[in-house]
Amino acid sequence: MTDTSQVNEVSPAGRRGREARRRDRAAPVASFPTLVRRIPVYDILPQEAIELIHDESCRILEEVGIDFRDDEAAAMWQAAGADVDGYRVRIGRAQLMELVGRIPAQYTMHARNPSRTVTVGGDNAIFVPMYGAPYVRDLDNVRRYGTLADLNNLHKLAYMAPALHSTSSIICEPMDVAVPHRHLHIIHSALKHSDKPFMGIVTARERAEDTMHMAGLAFGHDFVRDNTVLTAVVNCNSPLVWDATMLDALKVYAAHNQPCLLSPFALCGASTPASTVGSIAQVNAEALAGLAFTQLVRPGSPQVYGQFMVTIDMKTGAPMGGAPEAAHMTLVMGALARKYKLPFRTSGFHVGSKLNDAQAGYEANLLMHAAILSGANYIWHVAGWLEAGLVCGYSKFVTDAEQLEGWYKYAQGVSLDDLRDAMAAVREVGPGGHYLGTAHTLEHFETAFFMPKVMDFNSFEQWSAEGAKDHDTRGREKAMAMLGAYEEPVLDAGVAEALRDFIARRERELPAGVS
Amino acid sequence: MTDTSQVNEVSPAGRRGREARRRDRAAPVASFPTLVRRIPVYDILPQEAIELIHDESCRILEEVGIDFRDDEAAAMWQAAGADVDGYRVRIGRAQLMELVGRIPAQYTMHARNPSRTVTVGGDNAIFVPMYGAPYVRDLDNVRRYGTLADLNNLHKLAYMAPALHSTSSIICEPMDVAVPHRHLHIIHSALKHSDKPFMGIVTARERAEDTMHMAGLAFGHDFVRDNTVLTAVVNCNSPLVWDATMLDALKVYAAHNQPCLLSPFALCGASTPASTVGSIAQVNAEALAGLAFTQLVRPGSPQVYGQFMVTIDMKTGAPMGGAPEAAHMTLVMGALARKYKLPFRTSGFHVGSKLNDAQAGYEANLLMHAAILSGANYIWHVAGWLEAGLVCGYSKFVTDAEQLEGWYKYAQGVSLDDLRDAMAAVREVGPGGHYLGTAHTLEHFETAFFMPKVMDFNSFEQWSAEGAKDHDTRGREKAMAMLGAYEEPVLDAGVAEALRDFIARRERELPAGVS
Repeated sequence: MTDTSQVNEVSPAGRRGREARRRDRAAPVASFPTLVRRIPVYDILPQEAIELIHDESCRILEEVGIDFRDDEAAAMWQAAGADVDGYRVRIGRAQLMELVGRIPAQYTMHARNPSRTVTVGGDNAIFVPMYGAPYVRDLDNVRRYGTLADLNNLHKLAYMAPALHSTSSIICEPMDVAVPHRHLHIIHSALKHSDKPFMGIVTARERAEDTMHMAGLAFGHDFVRDNTVLTAVVNCNSPLVWDATMLDALKVYAAHNQPCLLSPFALCGASTPASTVGSIAQVNAEALAGLAFTQLVRPGSPQVYGQFMVTIDMKTGAPMGGAPEAAHMTLVMGALARKYKLPFRTSGFHVGSKLNDAQAGYEANLLMHAAILSGANYIWHVAGWLEAGLVCGYSKFVTDAEQLEGWYKYAQGVSLDDLRDAMAAVREVGPGGHYLGTAHTLEHFETAFFMPKVMDFNSFEQWSAEGAKDHDTRGREKAMAMLGAYEEPVLDAGVAEALRDFIARRERELPAGVS
Repeated sequence: MTDTSQVNEVSPAGRRGREARRRDRAAPVASFPTLVRRIPVYDILPQEAIELIHDESCRILEEVGIDFRDDEAAAMWQAAGADVDGYRVRIGRAQLMELVGRIPAQYTMHARNPSRTVTVGGDNAIFVPMYGAPYVRDLDNVRRYGTLADLNNLHKLAYMAPALHSTSSIICEPMDVAVPHRHLHIIHSALKHSDKPFMGIVTARERAEDTMHMAGLAFGHDFVRDNTVLTAVVNCNSPLVWDATMLDALKVYAAHNQPCLLSPFALCGASTPASTVGSIAQVNAEALAGLAFTQLVRPGSPQVYGQFMVTIDMKTGAPMGGAPEAAHMTLVMGALARKYKLPFRTSGFHVGSKLNDAQAGYEANLLMHAAILSGANYIWHVAGWLEAGLVCGYSKFVTDAEQLEGWYKYAQGVSLDDLRDAMAAVREVGPGGHYLGTAHTLEHFETAFFMPKVMDFNSFEQWSAEGAKDHDTRGREKAMAMLGAYEEPVLDAGVAEALRDFIARRERELPAGVS
């Protein structure tokens, strides 16, 4: 399925010069297939501990219960036989596990370019850029509100980054577009600037319906009634509340067989107890309850179990990235996902840093390593994230995107195929020799070791001669070069027109002044 | 043994202001005990693969052999019954394993302050700062040659950093001291500015002997004949050469029961094949041969198995950090160490970056995560390392030192002790509540989550008001504050005088003009 050789391909815009750009335009954009993991997961806790946490989560749902603050949802739970008191729903573990057990272990997410279709679940993983930033840190390193032009740019970068499997959708908020119209332009940008899978809008039932209609224009309305073409996120209001807005969006998507990530966004210590395992047990209860509800809407619909848990600085309440406890939580939640045989979503390169600086790097790779070892399938927020998600940075985006090529290779594991040939090279070179000119080296030097390009490994003298640029500066330059080399993927003219017409109609129907 | 609560202590100089500094001076410097791992190791390959690599390493030593380019060493191998042809030594696997099997699985390294004594091996791990940089990136962010004043400063920082278990020794080269006298001042600085364990000098037999003499002045000459007070590094010249300088130093230290790290420094692709497993098999052979030799010098002497393997950019030959293959190598070498029941040395925060910037952070935590999961016992180069080891950065040093506090906590694992109490808090708070004011939170907020201080998680507005500093700037400020708060640990006046007298005598004996 996967092909290691792709990982060391130079991404098109990494090259410089007019001739190189001309070649780039002619070349199709490289894209890695679904990452098929060939490394074991890392079980940080023994199975007894996982069972103990599961038991506590079940007890919460049985004894405390969880709020579904939506009349329709509460009625659906009542009809299904749960113990319902107003919005408070108490769910027995037998029913909970029966409902969760209906969710398939993996699903296929179709892209409008079939070669970019991916699989989520089991050993299959995808990388998805960040979502939801009101601000960008732009190509001049200025922090300002995001615009539709920024979103277009970020979709272009996501399209061009070979290790990104999706364009997400709201990478940044297009703050220059009226709120009632924003979802239309977000989905349009994702469909127009990329042919990779994307994410649905969840801020209102009607916006979810519009999303499905636009997906139907691109894929065919019949097709998107049963076939997955997007994934959406539905957050729990921790502790233990599912609200009507989220549930409305969930109902729309589940009815169309489009999965949601049911992954509570927990500020651990504020919306969960100040305890790693306590936070996990609560978030697990929240996720399981939400997942069970999806199966009342459409039994057998694909869904994704997961988490987004950040610890907070307990003195200021500020969310932190790069905390060892966040890595622990990721690993333990992964083990729970395996117990439930569910696709698992976690986050990767999310950080608290304001800048694409050392803090960002330390935070990012601490968390990504945990995400990879946790067996995660939908690895989200892996490009652009700064400042606890308030900001999408262009430089951070391309930095992350390149790092993903390395993580892709990491997750493909250690191959022993080459051992005998390499040993022949050792015999040939012998004590005191060197390998640079050997036939084995010449055959393997392109692919043996990952060689990132935004990172700099030149001599100090050469690096100085090239301007002594820090990584952040090189990242912005790479983003500019990529955008300069961008070519839009083909979109059927009829589809393009239908999308434009739909947007125009909905803009007339939806007054811009109402949020 | 270990105490999680220590991890969240504010390191003394992290505070600001005169009054805070006065308090700091009165307080003893915090120091974490040996890290006792409570997390499982990560086996990235199945045991059959480890055995296959072992077999290939043995075949190299049996069929190709390895050079011990030292008459005395070659004669010792011949006397031991190996197949010796000039300097080429071929060692059968039975003899190899018999010799390696004499090495203890762990050892105690005494500090001159007994409360800083550590254990290396088994589940016990220590963090040791970098070694050998000719350059520093200083408190003004200028890259220049290191001086003895810099080395003093870096020993002070190592002493004050609670998660650093050693001062290393040559953190930077004191380039302003004549080469023949340099080793004397390096060891003197380590003994004077810190009471933690340190590392021996290996650049000549006489310098190793001087190191042991100075250690004897501090610990008692009888004591250091049998008790370990330092660890030294002895590098193989890959491929497959142990040279006379390294072997001479090794003989001095092994004779005194002082361990060496036998960990080839491999530029993978240049001094090993362009293959992850091929590089591992060769380096393993080199390490095993060196370790076996130590047991000809002193059977039962403690020694450390290990590796320092960096991949190179195969187009320029430049060493890289943060490569996925380097992480793979660390994990596989850790599995080999467990097979041989040997203490395992690897490296942590080593990077190729010129600056303490995003590149440095991404590289550093990719590698450290692998080091922690590999089960490493002697985790070296974990403070200061920049530019493939050419540079020690003050800002990088304190950045790394703080990160180690988080990694210390990570390696202590996920405790379930608090699960029931945390669940009681969930019951108390209930759906829609919050945790900040609960008794459980108030009891646990100081220790629940790691809160780094050089990292910044304030609001954008507050961060801007404080000067919008990047991480590198904050790191330099922290280093300055720490040095301002430094107080020298007590050293017996007689010992101090004896050290000074010895240095004066050796300086007279050793002409400064000869290197």
